[in-house]
Amino acid sequence: MTTDDTICAISTAPGMGAIAVIRLAGEQAFSICEKVFIPAKSGKVLSQQPANSIHFGKITDGEKDLDEVLVSVFKAPHSFTGDHIVEIACHGAPYIQQQLLQLLVKNGARLALPGEFTQRAFLNGKMDLSQAEAVADLIASSNEAVRRVALQQMRGGFSSELIKLRERLLWFISLIELELDFSEEDVEFANREELIALVNEIEAHIARLVTSFSLGNVIKNGIPVAIVGHTNAGKSTLLNALLNEERAIVSDIHGTTRDAIEDSINIGGIAFRFIDTAGIRTTADKIESLGIQLTYSKVKQASIVLLLVDVTDPEDKIHEAVSDIMEKIDRERQQLIVIVNKIDLSDPSTIQEKFSQKAFSELSGHHSVVPIAAKFRTNLDQLTTELLRTIDLQAVNNDEVIVTNARHHEALTQALQSSLG
Amino acid sequence: MTTDDTICAISTAPGMGAIAVIRLAGEQAFSICEKVFIPAKSGKVLSQQPANSIHFGKITDGEKDLDEVLVSVFKAPHSFTGDHIVEIACHGAPYIQQQLLQLLVKNGARLALPGEFTQRAFLNGKMDLSQAEAVADLIASSNEAVRRVALQQMRGGFSSELIKLRERLLWFISLIELELDFSEEDVEFANREELIALVNEIEAHIARLVTSFSLGNVIKNGIPVAIVGHTNAGKSTLLNALLNEERAIVSDIHGTTRDAIEDSINIGGIAFRFIDTAGIRTTADKIESLGIQLTYSKVKQASIVLLLVDVTDPEDKIHEAVSDIMEKIDRERQQLIVIVNKIDLSDPSTIQEKFSQKAFSELSGHHSVVPIAAKFRTNLDQLTTELLRTIDLQAVNNDEVIVTNARHHEALTQALQSSLG
Repeated sequence: MTTDDTICAISTAPGMGAIAVIRLAGEQAFSICEKVFIPAKSGKVLSQQPANSIHFGKITDGEKDLDEVLVSVFKAPHSFTGDHIVEIACHGAPYIQQQLLQLLVKNGARLALPGEFTQRAFLNGKMDLSQAEAVADLIASSNEAVRRVALQQMRGGFSSELIKLRERLLWFISLIELELDFSEEDVEFANREELIALVNEIEAHIARLVTSFSLGNVIKNGIPVAIVGHTNAGKSTLLNALLNEERAIVSDIHGTTRDAIEDSINIGGIAFRFIDTAGIRTTADKIESLGIQLTYSKVKQASIVLLLVDVTDPEDKIHEAVSDIMEKIDRERQQLIVIVNKIDLSDPSTIQEKFSQKAFSELSGHHSVVPIAAKFRTNLDQLTTELLRTIDLQAVNNDEVIVTNARHHEALTQALQSSLG
Repeated sequence: MTTDDTICAISTAPGMGAIAVIRLAGEQAFSICEKVFIPAKSGKVLSQQPANSIHFGKITDGEKDLDEVLVSVFKAPHSFTGDHIVEIACHGAPYIQQQLLQLLVKNGARLALPGEFTQRAFLNGKMDLSQAEAVADLIASSNEAVRRVALQQMRGGFSSELIKLRERLLWFISLIELELDFSEEDVEFANREELIALVNEIEAHIARLVTSFSLGNVIKNGIPVAIVGHTNAGKSTLLNALLNEERAIVSDIHGTTRDAIEDSINIGGIAFRFIDTAGIRTTADKIESLGIQLTYSKVKQASIVLLLVDVTDPEDKIHEAVSDIMEKIDRERQQLIVIVNKIDLSDPSTIQEKFSQKAFSELSGHHSVVPIAAKFRTNLDQLTTELLRTIDLQAVNNDEVIVTNARHHEALTQALQSSLG
């Protein structure tokens, strides 16, 4: 135990549920709980109960009963924080939760600070810092990829990579020091090439981790996707179809969407942050032209740009839209997918002709072309497949270590720069 | 066990917490959990673990690990529902909760309907209907009085009253039947007076329960309190002071509040539903005069009417306000408290003179007069004491049985009418 005080907090989500769990951790966890908990089986003493056992009874403030509860007993050091822990499962009324919390505080517990249980687990040596950080990521995970990477990190995946790195570095240091110590005695413990190979190996290891952050970062924050196109090409309709709900205002009037709308959608376990934008066209409307400026700045932030064109538009208008966007994107960093919308309004042969892969792909720099009908959700599958194809998920699926934390990335980048320096 | 299928649901509040608890109840609870749970200690079999024990391990879908969890084991019939129950405490990400729930469903569980766990507890004879109803009330309790009454009912308080009543009725029936059976033999088992006394006792018992509903109902739904007074008397300021937050828009312009604003506040463990109203004055403003009409209809709904007068107003204006409201209220059903506001703007002797208990109380029909300064929160204590005094809380504090459920009230009322009929 690293601190004397016993902390308590509601561990379950705020609000009303069938039950709520209040956690009490610290040296006094049992004695504080014993002051307010009366077991249904009389004579039962909480601190004498076996570890990992559950007990039914009531909570009382001495005068009146507060609730009937289940109390779980965990004993140091075999608990999440390494302290004695009591978890009280009460009825889920927010009022009861608050009353119980106040009662525990009145009897000597202190309200835990945010993250303090995990901090204690760290201070008590139950986990290292990267594992503690992963607990927060896991709790906040909103899609499969984040959950998977966080769980792997919480279970020590990243830590074991660092341990490996540290071992190699220590080995390198000992070799160098031996060389220095015995340099006058003409004994060679490692030749220069071996040393260089070792450094290169370490460097490559760090470089791989640093590089993994570009994937780790988009996994954690979602992949930014900008939807652009002429006004009325159906951008909002597409966004709605993807979001499967009426998020943007849809109308037949050109320029309905003036603000950039953002929303996240999980596709294949990955979060894509879709950015709907104002249509690109020359306009006299001041507010709308501000919207178009915003569109171009949003395009710069995106990893993937979806250009939406209307199949019924004249060919030169479509070609103009494609060349326009080709000028704005950075081909090194950004992926372009051209989406041909409203295919329900045209016959297949016309579409074939207008967007024949050969002629069109030359213009669009060999980027993908996906024909859809957003209004009828036709061919959206092909689009989502195309979106997933743009990201290399092999590392996630193989449970490789992926750096998702900016602090880790910075530290590793510094290490890499030192080795290169 | 009354049904074959095993049900599952998230038992904690929706949203993100540190942990969430998913409950699995039914004959297959152990076998379904065993398919997805791998205990940290290998070789452990869940169904062979002692009742009320907790086990650490991971949840897996066979290919990949979902989360690290704690699993609590409860064995039939010693569980909340009377079934086998497994409770899985996972990390509190909504995404993880949903994935875990889906995994359980994929392995043979069914999503529980709302209230189905409590329904099973009822069907399995763990509690009677009034206790099951009290579980829902307890979970939804938002103040001390509701919590107290619901807990008492859940623990069988109301049920035991009904059992007592039933015993008395059965006793009465047996006496009557004996009389009928042996009526020709001239044996008297109970004289007429004893029978009448018994019926009267039963009737009084039912009548007490029926009457308790008027308290039970306001406890459950909050006591409606209307705040009325001339424009700019400080009604919104008083409401804000009571609510301890800026709920209504306050300004120096007469008639700022046009809509009736409702908000609840707990005073001494009781919910009061405060209704701020538009000021009462003759006005040419159409919208405002609609607001004043609304005021009078709100006054009708209130159990307590707070009339706010401005100490700096001329005496006749104040007297007019008092007589106005005295005409509108029903003295049998409604309590009036006259609040003299802005006492900071007047000297004590003037206040004394204007509102001398004798002269003023005659006008206000001997209702309470409370001097305050809402803006500075002066004397609000006296007002809250006065509010609590209007309700008879002895029954709650003595843990007497109070009927809070409309269904119970109706059944008891019918019983009472039959006995009177």
